Amino acid sequence: MKSPKKIVYGGIDAGGTSFKCVLADESRNIIAQTDVPTTTPQYTLAQCIEFFKSAVTTSTIEALGIASFGPLDIDPNSGAYGTYLPGPKSGWAGVNLYSAFKDALGIPVAIDTDVNGALLAELAWGNAKGYTSAAYVTIGTGIGAGILCAGQLVGKPAHPEFGHIRVERHPDDLDFKGVCSVHGACLEGLASGPSLHARFGDPEKLARDHKAWDMLAFYLAQACVSLALSFRPQAIILGGGVLQTKHVLPKIKRQYANQINAYLGQTEDDIDRLIIPPKLGRNAGIWGGIYLAQNIGYK
Amino acid sequence: MKSPKKIVYGGIDAGGTSFKCVLADESRNIIAQTDVPTTTPQYTLAQCIEFFKSAVTTSTIEALGIASFGPLDIDPNSGAYGTYLPGPKSGWAGVNLYSAFKDALGIPVAIDTDVNGALLAELAWGNAKGYTSAAYVTIGTGIGAGILCAGQLVGKPAHPEFGHIRVERHPDDLDFKGVCSVHGACLEGLASGPSLHARFGDPEKLARDHKAWDMLAFYLAQACVSLALSFRPQAIILGGGVLQTKHVLPKIKRQYANQINAYLGQTEDDIDRLIIPPKLGRNAGIWGGIYLAQNIGYK
Repeated sequence: MKSPKKIVYGGIDAGGTSFKCVLADESRNIIAQTDVPTTTPQYTLAQCIEFFKSAVTTSTIEALGIASFGPLDIDPNSGAYGTYLPGPKSGWAGVNLYSAFKDALGIPVAIDTDVNGALLAELAWGNAKGYTSAAYVTIGTGIGAGILCAGQLVGKPAHPEFGHIRVERHPDDLDFKGVCSVHGACLEGLASGPSLHARFGDPEKLARDHKAWDMLAFYLAQACVSLALSFRPQAIILGGGVLQTKHVLPKIKRQYANQINAYLGQTEDDIDRLIIPPKLGRNAGIWGGIYLAQNIGYK
Repeated sequence: MKSPKKIVYGGIDAGGTSFKCVLADESRNIIAQTDVPTTTPQYTLAQCIEFFKSAVTTSTIEALGIASFGPLDIDPNSGAYGTYLPGPKSGWAGVNLYSAFKDALGIPVAIDTDVNGALLAELAWGNAKGYTSAAYVTIGTGIGAGILCAGQLVGKPAHPEFGHIRVERHPDDLDFKGVCSVHGACLEGLASGPSLHARFGDPEKLARDHKAWDMLAFYLAQACVSLALSFRPQAIILGGGVLQTKHVLPKIKRQYANQINAYLGQTEDDIDRLIIPPKLGRNAGIWGGIYLAQNIGYK
């Protein structure tokens, strides 16, 4: 007698470097996973589909959730749901993630931004558990934010593009043109991984006391100040590859305190509770995908 | 036989210069109004109370709504509801608007920020009618914003302090210290009425082609860019005394288009629909108070 197929959920963290695919059960035990390099849409999507198809022999995939880089259409009521819009990632505009996976796998598919996904995962299982207002900011190749306000994701049916706000220049950084291909010296153009690389070389090789980190903290503190003054969130989670260097977080908090100058009456402890790292670390995106799959229909 | 007392609503636009008090009926016909200079809390509140008490002889005031300058506690569940917090307006911290009017008039009192009030009025009767996401930004003695997102006011039970975000400096404005007493060169410190005055003299006397207006537009466009990238609002209403000079709005739109560089795919028409003046003009705050009174319990 054959045992019944196990019920699992598919999740994809669709990033600029790779599409991280995972299968997990109801209790978030990982059944299988793979990393597919992000090259052409044809290659990358075919490899992801292949991974999930091969899993179907031993499991029933209940649904697939995708937390993706943007900009893309995340309005479930739109005919273009899951379609990439023109943005920094060349070759992907017009590609429809939703129909690609839906047609190939024949299961429900939910799509949101990587940062909305990571935020939902941190709200469900991480450092923002139970909060009704919070932001998840990722600082990596790009900068983006998912924002929850009064229990609702902000910007729907579109999504925030918070990484492209303008910021005050650090006094030692007035001549740098910035690396954002669209805006030059927006937040992303001045504080993303590539922006550090352009000014100071490989960020992973910089000493902890290098002035690059103070400059980064100056910009990211402004992002936190803007979020705090706009949304009054209970937590601002700072994630992404650039902030794997944990020593930057205290610098950001100090700069935040300096810039906001006690305007919201926050104590040092309040700021410690406000500006926090993700609990799910680099896996926040994957768990975001799984969260979307488990809560299909979430809006 | 005496005719029954008319049912009216009280509204106050509590500003830094004056408390504008109005009585209006269900259909927004104005029954009576007065302006009380904002001096000491004792004097100003007593004069306002006197105005409403004198009206009670001919009318029944159903409720009073107050749209006030901030920062103040606008959480109806807080014991300090209606109390001013420490802020730029000296002498008012700790004053409780709610109990002052509630105790003196014995009627329901609702309190929100001036910008939330103005936004609610523009949503009900003005240029944002029917919208589910919009922002009202006032540019006057200070700068503030009320923000609605997915049908809900953002920041509750606190309120945004959007006027104090950091902004990129205009290249011709690098040496100005800014006028914000708390932050120096935040948005309010660089683009409020007093900031124009500090650099260029009385704004009302500046020629339309004075570079001050381009500088102002540069900063206010950044505010619009930040709001658009964060909230994706259907409209950003720019009100307040400084923008009574109508020729600035087209400059702001041009700078917005320049700064956002088509990132959200907006056409010129889209930007015309996005960045708009208030329909209720300088009366938005008063009508905000009336709206709060008519919709007591609105959260």
